[in-house]
Amino acid sequence: MSLVEEHAAFRRQLVDARLLVPSSIDGLYGRSGAFEDIVEAVDRQVVAAGSDLKASRFRFPPILPTDAFEKTDYLASFPNLTGAVSTFTGDDRQHAELLALHAEGGNWFAKLNPADVMLVSAACHPAYPMMAGQLPADGAVLDVYGFCFRHEPAIDPARMQVFRQHEFVYLGDPSGARAHRDMWVTRGLELLDSIGLDAVSDVANDPFFGRAGRMLATNQRSEVLKIELLVHLYGGSGEGDSGTAVVSCNCHLDHFGASFGIRTADDEVAHTACVGFGMERIALSLLRTHGTDPGRWPQSVRRRLWP
Amino acid sequence: MSLVEEHAAFRRQLVDARLLVPSSIDGLYGRSGAFEDIVEAVDRQVVAAGSDLKASRFRFPPILPTDAFEKTDYLASFPNLTGAVSTFTGDDRQHAELLALHAEGGNWFAKLNPADVMLVSAACHPAYPMMAGQLPADGAVLDVYGFCFRHEPAIDPARMQVFRQHEFVYLGDPSGARAHRDMWVTRGLELLDSIGLDAVSDVANDPFFGRAGRMLATNQRSEVLKIELLVHLYGGSGEGDSGTAVVSCNCHLDHFGASFGIRTADDEVAHTACVGFGMERIALSLLRTHGTDPGRWPQSVRRRLWP
Repeated sequence: MSLVEEHAAFRRQLVDARLLVPSSIDGLYGRSGAFEDIVEAVDRQVVAAGSDLKASRFRFPPILPTDAFEKTDYLASFPNLTGAVSTFTGDDRQHAELLALHAEGGNWFAKLNPADVMLVSAACHPAYPMMAGQLPADGAVLDVYGFCFRHEPAIDPARMQVFRQHEFVYLGDPSGARAHRDMWVTRGLELLDSIGLDAVSDVANDPFFGRAGRMLATNQRSEVLKIELLVHLYGGSGEGDSGTAVVSCNCHLDHFGASFGIRTADDEVAHTACVGFGMERIALSLLRTHGTDPGRWPQSVRRRLWP
Repeated sequence: MSLVEEHAAFRRQLVDARLLVPSSIDGLYGRSGAFEDIVEAVDRQVVAAGSDLKASRFRFPPILPTDAFEKTDYLASFPNLTGAVSTFTGDDRQHAELLALHAEGGNWFAKLNPADVMLVSAACHPAYPMMAGQLPADGAVLDVYGFCFRHEPAIDPARMQVFRQHEFVYLGDPSGARAHRDMWVTRGLELLDSIGLDAVSDVANDPFFGRAGRMLATNQRSEVLKIELLVHLYGGSGEGDSGTAVVSCNCHLDHFGASFGIRTADDEVAHTACVGFGMERIALSLLRTHGTDPGRWPQSVRRRLWP
C-alpha cells in the first residue's frame, strides 16, 4: 500500500468508526463524542505533566487581531497556510450586487473587506500582546489551549486544517527558555510512552515558504531551535514515512520578545519557548496504534487515560 | 450613566478583575482561567439540563466549508456579520509582492484567494450537512458546542466577535420541532433561575440586513419563530436597555431541511429547531449580577455551580 493509500484507508477507518465526520473540504472534520472523550483524556495527561509549573491559564478565541498576527512573521514564513478574515461592509445596493455575483457562481469573496482579524496559526500567538512590558524576576509560564488553522487540504487525517494545540509557554531569559524547551522534550516523550505511543525526538524541518523560506529552514535546523516528537503512523509497508509530529518543543530566541516588546526584569529583550501538544494528532496516534475501539485498548493505556 | 458608559465601565471591571484580556480589536478577548472556570461550571448545568435527550454529541471546528455556509442563507440575512477566509496561493514572486504591499501598509488581503472555508456563524450550521438523507422514525437530537464568529466590534463585553454556543438541535417533524423549541424556553428559564439570574422570554427581533432583511425580520416576529431568554445587564440608571439574549430558542421550519436535503422517516422535508446557550453571555450575566469575585457569589449559586 502506498503512503497515500494508507492515508485514505486510515481516514476511511476513522469515518466508518464514527470518530471523525468528513466534510466537503479535505482536512476539515467534525469530531464525535467518542473522539472528544479521547482528546479530553489526553488533555488531562497534558495538564498533569505541567501542573508543577503553576502556569497562568488563558484561553484565546480561534481568531486574533491582524496587527498581532503581523508581528509573528507568519506571513513571511508560511503565507500559504494563513487564514485572513474578510466581511461585507457595503450598503443595500452593494449587498444586492454581492448576492447576484454569488448566484451566478462568481468570486463574491472579492467584494468583501478585511475584518481586521486572522485565524490563529499557533495557539500561543494571541498570548504575546498581553505580555508586552516587563516580566517578573523569574519570568512567566502560560498555559494556553486553542484552535489553530493551517490551510493545507490533505487526505491524511493527521494533517487537519483546524486542530487544537495545548501549549506551555515560557517567557524570560535565554537559559530559562532553552531549559523549558529541553525539559518538555523529556516530559513529552514520557507522556507519550505512558499511553503506549512509541515516539522519537528529532530536529524539526518546517516547510518555510519559497526561496527566503529555505534559508530560514536551514537556520532553524542548524541552530536546533525546534525539536519535534514524532510517531510513526504510516509506512508499515516499507515506504518511507518521516513520522507525524505530535508534540513540538520550540525555542523562539528573542523573536517574539522583540516583536511584542516583552522585556525581562533585567530590562533585556525576553526570550520565549513553548511546547505544543497536537491534541488531534495524539488522539489519532492512539487510534492508529491501539485500534479504533478505545474499549479494546490495552488495559495499561485505558487505566492511564480513564483512571 | 449612559448605556455606552455602562458598557465601558463593565468592560473595565472585567479587565481589572483579570477575567477578560482585551486585545487591539473591540469584542475580541482572551479568557482567564477564572473566567473559564465559570464557563465550564455553566456548561455542566447545560449538559445536565439536556441529559434525558440522549443527544448525539459532536464538536465542530470554528470554520466550515463555504458550500455548507452558503446553504444557511446567512449571506443574504447577515452579510455584515460573516467571516470569509482567504489565503495566499501564489508563487515566490507574488509572495515578494505581497510582503512589499504589506510593508508599505497596503491592502494585502486583496492579494489573497478564497480558502473555501468560512467562520462558523451559529454552532449548529456545520452539523446539517452530515444529516443529509433520511432521519430515524423519531427524528434526531444533536448536542453541539463550538465557537461562533460575528463581525460586530462593540464596547459591550456581552457583544463579543467570537463566543461559544452550546446547542441542542432537533431534526424531525414539525410538531417535534415546535415542542423542542418550547420545552427549551421552559428549561432555559429554569436553568437561569437556578443560578440566580433573573431572565424573561421574549420574541426575538434579529438585526436582518437591509431592505430584504426588514421583511424577514417581520416574518420572524409574526410567526414567533425565535424566542430569546433575556437578562437585564444594563439600564440600572433608568436608560432603556432591551436586555441581553443569553439563550435563544429557535424554530427553523423546513429551512435547513430543504437546503441540506434532510428528510423524515415519512419522506417529508425535515423541520429543525435548536436551543443555543450563549456561554460567555451567561458567564457575564453571573459576573454582572453576583459580582466579579465568584468566591463571594451567593452560597446557593456557588453550591449549584460547584457542588
